[in-house]
Amino acid sequence: GLEDFCAAMHPARAAEFMQGLTPAETWAVLQAAEPAERVEIFEYLDEARQVEILETAAPEETSQVIANMAPDDRVDLLKLVDPAAVERLLPLVPTEERRDINRLSLYPEGTAGSLMTTNVARLSESVTVGDALKEIALQTQNHETIYYIYVVDGENHLRGLITARQLLMHLGTPDELVTDLMQRDLVTVEATDDQEAVASKVADYNFMAIPVVDHEHHLVGIITHDDVIDVLREEAEEDAYRAGAIAPLEESYLSTPIHTLSWKRGMWLSALLAASFLTVFALKSFNKTLDAVGWLALFLPLIVSCGGNSGGQSATLVITALTSGDLTIKDWWRVLRRELSMGLLLGAWLGSIAYVGALLVVDEPTAGELLVIPITLLLVVTCSTIVGGALPLIFRRLGLDPALMSNPFVAGIIDITGILIYLTVCITLLEGI
Amino acid sequence: GLEDFCAAMHPARAAEFMQGLTPAETWAVLQAAEPAERVEIFEYLDEARQVEILETAAPEETSQVIANMAPDDRVDLLKLVDPAAVERLLPLVPTEERRDINRLSLYPEGTAGSLMTTNVARLSESVTVGDALKEIALQTQNHETIYYIYVVDGENHLRGLITARQLLMHLGTPDELVTDLMQRDLVTVEATDDQEAVASKVADYNFMAIPVVDHEHHLVGIITHDDVIDVLREEAEEDAYRAGAIAPLEESYLSTPIHTLSWKRGMWLSALLAASFLTVFALKSFNKTLDAVGWLALFLPLIVSCGGNSGGQSATLVITALTSGDLTIKDWWRVLRRELSMGLLLGAWLGSIAYVGALLVVDEPTAGELLVIPITLLLVVTCSTIVGGALPLIFRRLGLDPALMSNPFVAGIIDITGILIYLTVCITLLEGI
Ligand SMILES: [Mg+2]
Ligand SMILES: [Mg+2]
Ligand SMILES: [Mg+2]
Ligand SMILES: [Mg+2]
Ligand SMILES: [Mg+2]
Ligand SMILES: [Mg+2]
Ligand SMILES: [Mg+2]
Ligand SMILES: [Mg+2]
Ligand SMILES: [Mg+2]
Ligand SMILES: [Mg+2]
Ligand SMILES: [Mg+2]
Ligand SMILES: [Mg+2]
Ligand SMILES: [Mg+2]
Repeated sequence: GLEDFCAAMHPARAAEFMQGLTPAETWAVLQAAEPAERVEIFEYLDEARQVEILETAAPEETSQVIANMAPDDRVDLLKLVDPAAVERLLPLVPTEERRDINRLSLYPEGTAGSLMTTNVARLSESVTVGDALKEIALQTQNHETIYYIYVVDGENHLRGLITARQLLMHLGTPDELVTDLMQRDLVTVEATDDQEAVASKVADYNFMAIPVVDHEHHLVGIITHDDVIDVLREEAEEDAYRAGAIAPLEESYLSTPIHTLSWKRGMWLSALLAASFLTVFALKSFNKTLDAVGWLALFLPLIVSCGGNSGGQSATLVITALTSGDLTIKDWWRVLRRELSMGLLLGAWLGSIAYVGALLVVDEPTAGELLVIPITLLLVVTCSTIVGGALPLIFRRLGLDPALMSNPFVAGIIDITGILIYLTVCITLLEGI
Repeated sequence: GLEDFCAAMHPARAAEFMQGLTPAETWAVLQAAEPAERVEIFEYLDEARQVEILETAAPEETSQVIANMAPDDRVDLLKLVDPAAVERLLPLVPTEERRDINRLSLYPEGTAGSLMTTNVARLSESVTVGDALKEIALQTQNHETIYYIYVVDGENHLRGLITARQLLMHLGTPDELVTDLMQRDLVTVEATDDQEAVASKVADYNFMAIPVVDHEHHLVGIITHDDVIDVLREEAEEDAYRAGAIAPLEESYLSTPIHTLSWKRGMWLSALLAASFLTVFALKSFNKTLDAVGWLALFLPLIVSCGGNSGGQSATLVITALTSGDLTIKDWWRVLRRELSMGLLLGAWLGSIAYVGALLVVDEPTAGELLVIPITLLLVVTCSTIVGGALPLIFRRLGLDPALMSNPFVAGIIDITGILIYLTVCITLLEGI
């Protein structure tokens, strides 16, 4: 029957299978499963499906699911459920779990506290290996992981860590004290730390979980590898959106309503359009030159896009290096020196090809006049790489997200600089006109 | 002494501390550590430092480190070491380990095989819980993780999975058979699968490790959470570089030599410059219009950048959704419909502000003539969002990386389209001229 089906399948696969059913049908199948499996499968369902079930099924039954869900996940989920449904549900959740939900929901999104789970395998300092194994076997049902077991003193201060592996290795000597085996030099995070800092610590140390402490070093929770993976994916998506000048989406592309999407896109496009008006101003004030040098306008888009592309590259390189931790603002001098050399090199190269191209394409101006193009490109590209390299550093220095200063914004700033350089070089070189 | 220092500290911290020493000093300190700790600390050193040590220290001693390193990591490391040093080292590594190195180095980078470790905790089908615990306690020194233990038949076919947690829970009933407890419905990957597919499976199922099988379902290795995190970071960086029109770097920004960097940037900039020449051609062939409509050139950069920005947004949204799996090419029709509506909405909005702005900034043309600007922007933005949304889908369909079609490339394609639209609208509306 349905019960056996739920028991034999991996809960993630069972959940996948149920995506084809209606929410009511899904809940009917889940009710046939053993309570433990019901919770496991429920946790793998899509968020939208979970919300629908909590809002429609009988709260007497769904409250049991909430009571047994992972503490971190249920807090995230309840934030999405209709407040009226939450008010019906919460009073039916056991007191201790309800308190835990209230406590965890105080941590703002993006902090270590909002990622941690509070079901932690704990041992007291005085316990022996034999007792520890027995206690862990009893605790195991409740905890997300029992592979890292934290040792705390009488006041819940974090003292050390012992792994299930170490306990198993000392199976033969059950009287050994856990304090003699445990690691004392622990890497921890504070509940208020930024999730990005947490993720990079876990990644650097290859941890399976990291303990979260408060400012008095009480153990308040742990953050596990799977939630770190979610953070990394979320942060990478956020940076990708920023690089494309879109305010980060909360939902997927297809499920974000058109009006939200047009707001998240339109606000940045409007800002960039406003910046573009500076180029109209600049060109207008050099109107005489534009009229006198007929071929000048032909190269406007080329010069502007060349500057934007090289500046965007520099910004991308610096933002990526800042994000991965390979670069800090202390390296600003090295960055600027690198970007200066890169700019001169790339500018000279692009200027040379553009010069050859211009000689072939345009017939009106002389080869001497067309020298304006390579000289402009050399200056524009050099200026762009320096600006593109410097802006993310300045943003980091100001405490802003350097990813904001990516491609389109650097390009917006460079558009106007490029045009001013172009027109100035024109006037200077073609003075006779 | 040094030995106690190494033993008391977390190996990652000890490694961090040693970054301040010279390679020779580092190796001297490592030699003072216990063999097991020596390997652990060595594994946390920077790759460059590891390479230096292997190339300079006595191969009799470093070969012991190689023999005891994680199988996946040593293969990656040896690929970076001078082949002459590798030839001195390998004959000193025990036969079995040497074979493992040779076998693993056959898997191309980017496949599941190149990520997996071969030190897997294995049990045979007939074993009892009590025997399993004893065997795991014996095996534990060698394995990266003993928390997932794989059950194989006599021919090493993967049959099931039992967790250390399940074994501990059944500590009280040591005669139970492992086959009665194990999970049989396993999620696996093949050694030739792409690393991105592996990472998204581990992320979706919240696994700590995933077993790797060959085409006959023999267990050949496992991929652990920490290596999945590295893949996710690497893939996110690769996509960020692509979005910035840079060929992905293998090393960090500051340690990549200038000539490599200028090649990785220059090749794309050159391609984009070549595309820009199309705009020169287009403008040249409409030279009469350019001369006749004096204010036309003023808005060239604005129109081109507006198109590039909106097309870049669409490309970013579609690429991000394709990468995260929220979108497949089957959704192409929904994407195009969405981008059409977005383009019309954003184009109408941007056109309206630009019209007001143009009326304020430019005084020469009449309000009627300036209608060219909003009409052009409506068409350019709509065209850009559709092109930006479609190109990544086309690339995915062709089996290419959709991330290649990001911002700068979409902008390059849109530059020319935008100019053609602008000039055509001009000619049509201002026919009298
Ligand atoms: Mg949360
Ligand atoms: Mg790592
Ligand atoms: Mg590891
Ligand atoms: Mg989670
Ligand atoms: Mg969790
Ligand atoms: Mg963030
Ligand atoms: Mg970020
Ligand atoms: Mg590898
Ligand atoms: Mg996950
Ligand atoms: Mg590994
Ligand atoms: Mg690794
Ligand atoms: Mg890849
Ligand atoms: Mg990729």
